[in-house]
Amino acid sequence: MPMDKLVAEVLAGNRRALARLLTQVENERPEVLPRLTALFPHTGRAHIIGITGAPGTGKSSLVNALAKRLRAQQQTVAIIAVDPTSPFSGGAILGDRIRMVELAGDAGVFIRSMATRGSLGGLARATRDMVRVLDAAGFDVVLVETVGAGQNEVDIARTAQTTLVVEAPGLGDEVQAIKAGILEIADILVVNKADRPGALQTVRSLKMMVETGHPAARERFAAHHGRLLPVPALPAGDEVSLWQPPVLQTVATENTGLDDLLAAIAQHRQFWHSGSRVTQLQERYIEIELYERLQQALMQRFVQALPPELVSATLQQIRARRLDPQSAIEQLLNQVETHGYPSSR
Amino acid sequence: MPMDKLVAEVLAGNRRALARLLTQVENERPEVLPRLTALFPHTGRAHIIGITGAPGTGKSSLVNALAKRLRAQQQTVAIIAVDPTSPFSGGAILGDRIRMVELAGDAGVFIRSMATRGSLGGLARATRDMVRVLDAAGFDVVLVETVGAGQNEVDIARTAQTTLVVEAPGLGDEVQAIKAGILEIADILVVNKADRPGALQTVRSLKMMVETGHPAARERFAAHHGRLLPVPALPAGDEVSLWQPPVLQTVATENTGLDDLLAAIAQHRQFWHSGSRVTQLQERYIEIELYERLQQALMQRFVQALPPELVSATLQQIRARRLDPQSAIEQLLNQVETHGYPSSR
Repeated sequence: MPMDKLVAEVLAGNRRALARLLTQVENERPEVLPRLTALFPHTGRAHIIGITGAPGTGKSSLVNALAKRLRAQQQTVAIIAVDPTSPFSGGAILGDRIRMVELAGDAGVFIRSMATRGSLGGLARATRDMVRVLDAAGFDVVLVETVGAGQNEVDIARTAQTTLVVEAPGLGDEVQAIKAGILEIADILVVNKADRPGALQTVRSLKMMVETGHPAARERFAAHHGRLLPVPALPAGDEVSLWQPPVLQTVATENTGLDDLLAAIAQHRQFWHSGSRVTQLQERYIEIELYERLQQALMQRFVQALPPELVSATLQQIRARRLDPQSAIEQLLNQVETHGYPSSR
Repeated sequence: MPMDKLVAEVLAGNRRALARLLTQVENERPEVLPRLTALFPHTGRAHIIGITGAPGTGKSSLVNALAKRLRAQQQTVAIIAVDPTSPFSGGAILGDRIRMVELAGDAGVFIRSMATRGSLGGLARATRDMVRVLDAAGFDVVLVETVGAGQNEVDIARTAQTTLVVEAPGLGDEVQAIKAGILEIADILVVNKADRPGALQTVRSLKMMVETGHPAARERFAAHHGRLLPVPALPAGDEVSLWQPPVLQTVATENTGLDDLLAAIAQHRQFWHSGSRVTQLQERYIEIELYERLQQALMQRFVQALPPELVSATLQQIRARRLDPQSAIEQLLNQVETHGYPSSR
């Protein structure tokens, strides 16, 4: 089969083609699927770094500062800013403009903002696919910036190899990440705006938490969720040392602390590429992705097979409390099974 | 069929039985399903109020103050505090203790905290079922408190008839809800800690947003997500006026502003029970619930039919980039379809 023109252009480094393909991914266009398949063998080379934190921690400035440093090291950088803000704010577009000015004209940087439209599950899926496209397009580093706000960030963090959780002192609450439940996903903890009062206290709190509760955070995260698919148990294997997330201080707007941060990122990258635990973790991420995609595919087929009149009669019965939701789905499953799925997929 | 003893006890107002059933719901025990079915016809009487907001807005104090006021009006109150904080914090247990002291000894109040364990999707489902149990148990009002942090709150808000989004001045960011993307779910906006500097500015920002962008927020939310199941289009019907979320100020710790808040809640409740749009919205919520439950049931059956060796071979092929995830699920679907599902459900 001859290679798709758009795919060939993306692989050749054509930026206009890249932007077009990313838009197709974001819009979940069906023609994107064979293109992602064609690009997949070219992925796996980029270092994917997630940056997440509460609003006000200065994570966009940190992303900018990191991008500039990486460029100074001759690395090409792609930035995906995922901003699940309300449709009122238009935050994504504004963020884009500010960044554009700062990093403008550098052909080694590619910036893309995504606003949420539709489901957040769709957003995580689209982000994962966009990261793959940018990886295949040959960027050395892909920075994925998200607002730290729970499940969505956990989902997006799964696409990253190294996840930075950004805090800042004096946000009214001692440590934002604990409240948001995103501390578990941190490979590196960054206290940004470290020239502000209270910085040392924030550092101390984070260090204490890392020391007391964190050592096997990522594994705990995995155990927490249980296996999703029937995977045979892996051999116990050789024990490797676990990653202990360092707590670093930065002032992104003044480029302070960035050398240490880059060093920690490099160390974590090395950790990621060594040891059997990490292999297990990678496999686990793939398992989660397969699970999510299967769920979507199964639902699509089932919904196509449902007669609309049956659905609307069921909804009415539930509203009238003559039927409860659990019994309702048993009826719907029986119905579709008796009459069969539509033959084609 | 004779009525299940636990169900009969819950309906008779036995608190110990209620607590036991709620624990079964939280742990997703299979014996809970017939019990929920038996309780379902007894639901639909309670007024369900969701309270959500960023950490630091004082929403727990607001919940307490509201509960006390409602008790003074002779209404029985159940509180579910959903606290998706990190396993490090133990926030749920602590919150429980503080509340217990304040509302202790009042038989007209029932308090239950849930910490996240496992999937957040599971949490939303468990919350929905717990609200139903409390509704069937005869509470006049069920207060559901969540930390405002994205998709999870949107999911939980779907169980509420009236959703309060709580803001506070001086949290470092002008309006927290915009960042978290939860403004759309607000029926009533509350600026708590309104005695702090900056309160009027927060009120002004929220009012402006409500006036410029919000009027049909809930409908926009619905349209946004599209239909999930094949439901025949409803007749255009008579137009009813839409709900415009009011912006109120409170100081919960001093019981200031609570009369206005209770009045707004009562107004919204009246709105909820009138007009065809609201009926459509209720139907929409049921549709979402059915969709989620179907998804879960379909996945369960499919996963049971997957041979473990096939899954592990597939994971390895993807890791080696010899197979992409999308093609992988097509293979898995084909495989299960050819060999069939296990016969029993």
